[in-house]
Amino acid sequence: MTQTEHRHDLPHVVIIGAGFGGLTAATKLARAPVHVTLIDRRNHHLFQPLLYQVATAGLSPNQIATPIRTIVRHQRNTDVLLDEVSGLDVARKEVLLAGRRLPYDYLVVATGARHAYFGHDAWESFAPGLKSLDDALEHRKRILLAFERAELEKDPEERARLLTFVVIGGGATGVELAGSIAELARKALVKDFRHISPQCARVVLIEAGPRLLPVFAEALSETARSALERLGAEVRLNTSVTAIDAEGVELGDARIDSRTVLWAAGVASSPVAAWTGAEADRAGRTRVGEDLSLPGYPDVFVIGDCASVAGADGKPLPGTAPVAKQQGAYVADIIVRALAGDGERPSFRFQDFGTMATVGRKAAVADFGSGVQLHGFIGWLVWSAAHIYFLIGFRNRIAVALDWLWSYLTYERGARLITGPIARAPMACPAAASNERGIVRTGQEQ
Amino acid sequence: MTQTEHRHDLPHVVIIGAGFGGLTAATKLARAPVHVTLIDRRNHHLFQPLLYQVATAGLSPNQIATPIRTIVRHQRNTDVLLDEVSGLDVARKEVLLAGRRLPYDYLVVATGARHAYFGHDAWESFAPGLKSLDDALEHRKRILLAFERAELEKDPEERARLLTFVVIGGGATGVELAGSIAELARKALVKDFRHISPQCARVVLIEAGPRLLPVFAEALSETARSALERLGAEVRLNTSVTAIDAEGVELGDARIDSRTVLWAAGVASSPVAAWTGAEADRAGRTRVGEDLSLPGYPDVFVIGDCASVAGADGKPLPGTAPVAKQQGAYVADIIVRALAGDGERPSFRFQDFGTMATVGRKAAVADFGSGVQLHGFIGWLVWSAAHIYFLIGFRNRIAVALDWLWSYLTYERGARLITGPIARAPMACPAAASNERGIVRTGQEQ
Repeated sequence: MTQTEHRHDLPHVVIIGAGFGGLTAATKLARAPVHVTLIDRRNHHLFQPLLYQVATAGLSPNQIATPIRTIVRHQRNTDVLLDEVSGLDVARKEVLLAGRRLPYDYLVVATGARHAYFGHDAWESFAPGLKSLDDALEHRKRILLAFERAELEKDPEERARLLTFVVIGGGATGVELAGSIAELARKALVKDFRHISPQCARVVLIEAGPRLLPVFAEALSETARSALERLGAEVRLNTSVTAIDAEGVELGDARIDSRTVLWAAGVASSPVAAWTGAEADRAGRTRVGEDLSLPGYPDVFVIGDCASVAGADGKPLPGTAPVAKQQGAYVADIIVRALAGDGERPSFRFQDFGTMATVGRKAAVADFGSGVQLHGFIGWLVWSAAHIYFLIGFRNRIAVALDWLWSYLTYERGARLITGPIARAPMACPAAASNERGIVRTGQEQ
Repeated sequence: MTQTEHRHDLPHVVIIGAGFGGLTAATKLARAPVHVTLIDRRNHHLFQPLLYQVATAGLSPNQIATPIRTIVRHQRNTDVLLDEVSGLDVARKEVLLAGRRLPYDYLVVATGARHAYFGHDAWESFAPGLKSLDDALEHRKRILLAFERAELEKDPEERARLLTFVVIGGGATGVELAGSIAELARKALVKDFRHISPQCARVVLIEAGPRLLPVFAEALSETARSALERLGAEVRLNTSVTAIDAEGVELGDARIDSRTVLWAAGVASSPVAAWTGAEADRAGRTRVGEDLSLPGYPDVFVIGDCASVAGADGKPLPGTAPVAKQQGAYVADIIVRALAGDGERPSFRFQDFGTMATVGRKAAVADFGSGVQLHGFIGWLVWSAAHIYFLIGFRNRIAVALDWLWSYLTYERGARLITGPIARAPMACPAAASNERGIVRTGQEQ
């Protein structure tokens, strides 16, 4: 079955992954004398920074995702393949797809990362992560169903368990998820139930380290924490999760009973290092040279969340959209130069324009470095403007802006739909189990 | 486990199903001296007439669905239960839910219909029907994936199979689906592929009867047919499907090879008759009295797609939104009268304000009876205005109107996302199978 495809007349650049890194590389090559093949296993580019909004019913999937084909429609030198890469043969310069091999002259690997459970893979079913649209719809279903089931529930203990939401991980995703769930409970849902008070829902954000948003300046970590607490969420720092099951999380000898645990604690790179035999860092990210190429393979570049690159301060660059986009643009430039006969490769330098995170409806923190920090409503306005600006596609920008204006004025959520199969209600589980284990209940511990 | 809940002080009206019928009954009882419990197994009311737009990537799910709780939020006498009814005990006046019984004083059953395969249940996996949001997302995934797989496919026969779309059933849903797929292929997708020409996709609409849209005036059936043909779709009347498999449909001794077959041919009522022991018509709909009550049970009403009621002309009323809504309003009125001591029950009379269907972007047919018929662009404008007007929720109306304006100006589709698990590409199937069966190929037959 395996076949090798014929080569194009032009040099063939294969890009794997149409996230921020791969898509930027592809668009920067639009006018280059190359043929580009952009491979992704999804048909859409996803604006990941807003994924938490889909998870909490604020935005609908099509508002943060655009078909890859539509984005590169007018780029006649670019082919889009909906396909899954199973490996790389860097010696023969071929990408392995199901049943065939695709040869390349230059390869850009931008396959990103998935959430990871640090050796506790069994936790995934109890505490799903948030990386794809399907993940976000799963979060949305669990969150909305918990309120629905609490409304039906007669047993006060089970009802409390259903109205407790635990978010694990205090980075930007965790902070944004926790803030958004707290706001959903206290605003959007508050008039819709008869037997429960959604505003009494408990939202707990758990972070193993000493502060939230570790990549931000310390003062902003504190701002984010107090903003979350004003929304009614509890923040627990220096707290490690030791177990997760269908009825809650264990934190050493304490326990939080909860039917809805969401994971925002860690990611692991896609297996580029394993595919290529290259060296990986602790998070599985491939160590690349200063020109982002794979050591020994100057025609193979690894960028974005699957690459380990040191920043100006010697620390590895974070897995964020700006890093990936700048790397994509840099690699496209190196390829264009090489084709023009210029073999020089200045080292990649990341230009940091700042970091932002939002906490609920009108508080955000932004860190532009050199002491410039914003928070509160001004922070939220800047955050909104920046995210709408960077959203791909004129139409999505308008749609998201209108949606935010609408939610801002009404506190409504536009996408409060439960879709997909609904498993048997957890009420059917033996509700007594958590009481039988003799674990100290949370609340007695601090 | 089984428990019977305590009764409210006010008479208890239980409504099963929050479609057009049940929701109308509930809202009409907002100010009545009753306690209303509205039960649905989904959390949203669905605007079914536009479901085909979700199936063909024109609208996103949240644009045609609204949480039931939000709709009845200000109706303090109304409880919403997300739950599934497993049966009725009309003798004891109780609704059976998982593990408990809910007593009622008045019961309104509005549980609708599902698509049905006339004894060929195995066809469902090859030709899914279109009744829920999940159905629509399944349609959307199959349609969009077919184009993606055709783009990758080298074998011309398999590619043709992937680019052939068969819609079975020439009622409004089938006509609208076929028109919308033809337009998707010829407009929205046309610039996005490199190796296939989406505009060459073949769309075939199959109808067993002698004309499309049998509930419309005959002239409009002809209008719809020519509008579909102008869009490039093929219409086959008087044609019965004898088999469906993963690679196409059989029509007697002819065959159409296709990887995407969609079912719009028939529905069957939910099992109300079986629950109550009442008499059902051929489509499984419960025969009710002229006051829509279950024979022998004046406090139980059956309305909408699961009720069999004769119209003024003696023919059974069709399963449409206007019928269900008028029945819901009628039943609410009967209940309010009964509580006020007025036991009179004038027979239900359906007022027919007309029927509409759309074919592609700017052609629609509307039949207002008494010879008033619209078609073409004027028909489309009236159709759009009516559908936007009847869409629940101020915000959805605006969002849908903007989306239509956008698609009208650009031919774009806003929701071209493939979500959910993607099964192994059908290319992996033995592509030769259809050739081995010695069946006459379509195209040779007419």
